[in-house]
Amino acid sequence: MRQISSATNSLVKAYRRALADGLTRDGWLAVEGPFLVEEALRAAPAVRTHSMLIAESGRVKFAPLAELLPAEAEAVEISDHLFGQVSQTEKPQGLAALVELPRRDLETALEAKNLLLLVACGLQDPGNLGTLVRSAAGFGAAALCTLPGTVSPFNPKAVRSSAGAIFHLPVLAGVAGHDLFPRLRAARVEIIAADRHSPTSLCQADLKGPLAVLVGNEASGLPPEIAREATLRLSIPIRPGMDSVNAATAGSVFLYEAARQRGFSY
Amino acid sequence: MRQISSATNSLVKAYRRALADGLTRDGWLAVEGPFLVEEALRAAPAVRTHSMLIAESGRVKFAPLAELLPAEAEAVEISDHLFGQVSQTEKPQGLAALVELPRRDLETALEAKNLLLLVACGLQDPGNLGTLVRSAAGFGAAALCTLPGTVSPFNPKAVRSSAGAIFHLPVLAGVAGHDLFPRLRAARVEIIAADRHSPTSLCQADLKGPLAVLVGNEASGLPPEIAREATLRLSIPIRPGMDSVNAATAGSVFLYEAARQRGFSY
Repeated sequence: MRQISSATNSLVKAYRRALADGLTRDGWLAVEGPFLVEEALRAAPAVRTHSMLIAESGRVKFAPLAELLPAEAEAVEISDHLFGQVSQTEKPQGLAALVELPRRDLETALEAKNLLLLVACGLQDPGNLGTLVRSAAGFGAAALCTLPGTVSPFNPKAVRSSAGAIFHLPVLAGVAGHDLFPRLRAARVEIIAADRHSPTSLCQADLKGPLAVLVGNEASGLPPEIAREATLRLSIPIRPGMDSVNAATAGSVFLYEAARQRGFSY
Repeated sequence: MRQISSATNSLVKAYRRALADGLTRDGWLAVEGPFLVEEALRAAPAVRTHSMLIAESGRVKFAPLAELLPAEAEAVEISDHLFGQVSQTEKPQGLAALVELPRRDLETALEAKNLLLLVACGLQDPGNLGTLVRSAAGFGAAALCTLPGTVSPFNPKAVRSSAGAIFHLPVLAGVAGHDLFPRLRAARVEIIAADRHSPTSLCQADLKGPLAVLVGNEASGLPPEIAREATLRLSIPIRPGMDSVNAATAGSVFLYEAARQRGFSY
């Protein structure tokens, strides 16, 4: 295993930047901690791990994970002190990796049979977005798109909240509404606005056919120009006097209800 | 309005401690930011606001909220600098309050007609617990209990994630299992373990009668000694190959499914 001791080494610098931002300049995702690194390795060959960074004290513990690296990938050891400088977590666990997610395009994502698509429109909390990635993968969505103005699904906190689902679900970030909505309409996909003020409840609607669910900002909901694109507005009936549920919870409940109506036939 | 300039003033010290811990020694809840303070004031008289701390620069902006204070409550102004020292948020908004939640007891909570109870058993993430408080209030649960070993529902981050629902839902923290489970059994309440490995799906079960849903730790699920108390184990059917959904999402989906089966008759 190659050992690096310099904080100015280019790989070390790339890790530090990427662990803070989520993505490298090449669009590779930086992931930290044994859980996510193992999830990435197990998602091979769709997900390709390019390198792994191991703190000195983790050499023995993480040897079995290093064994899973593809032949062309590099494992690099650095001191615990240097790992602490590179890490973005409070308690560094001594393992990180740079991984390449499969290339995804909207066209292919929309070809899914009986489409179930989640569209995040302005969510700001990375934990909420990651939770939605996890729910979308769990409830059989074909993909998750984010519109511009939404927190990045590759934000490190979003990736952690996805609990590895980001390696399995096609996620398309920053899709322009004028690209997405005409295609959905052309394909006769029901475009559903999650709208707490709608008099129609999500379980009064037929969610068995192809559909896209639009989930808005935590505080302000869907921007009006996006809500206008919807072909149907549905609410989650909650107790009078209560305002709403959490945005990730709302999106997840829509996905669950759609999956339930479809008989959980994933 | 009384003005305080000393960082060692006892009220200022009480705020600093309580905003960090959640509760004062008297069991009053410290809340920060105009959204939560307003929610607390609007939940009067059940929720009693004892005092309000306003940063100098917020004097005009927060005057309408100060107007909502009950007669016996005190509004205190401090400098923006001192508020910054007291605050626990990255961007202090210049408003905090000490509020007293209604006293809740298990006996009364369990008397609810057609009980729907959420029991948090070992959750560690305050954001998840707060999200569950919000969902429980939204989906008509009678109360939320936490067992010992669960993060405090009065943790400041949990309170923020509850988005004010903590002022409306009876929340009982640190209830002993040997107090709770015999009472539930005696009252013929179905005790449901959310268990990802159960072959029975939550929507195959009748959730219309009195029930308690047990939600476990984010990583390890329900502790075996708690799972043993369940009279029914139900899973949320997710796509094969995916492991699970977020713990707060899982609890919320159980509450939604119960509310749906009950016709959302809150």
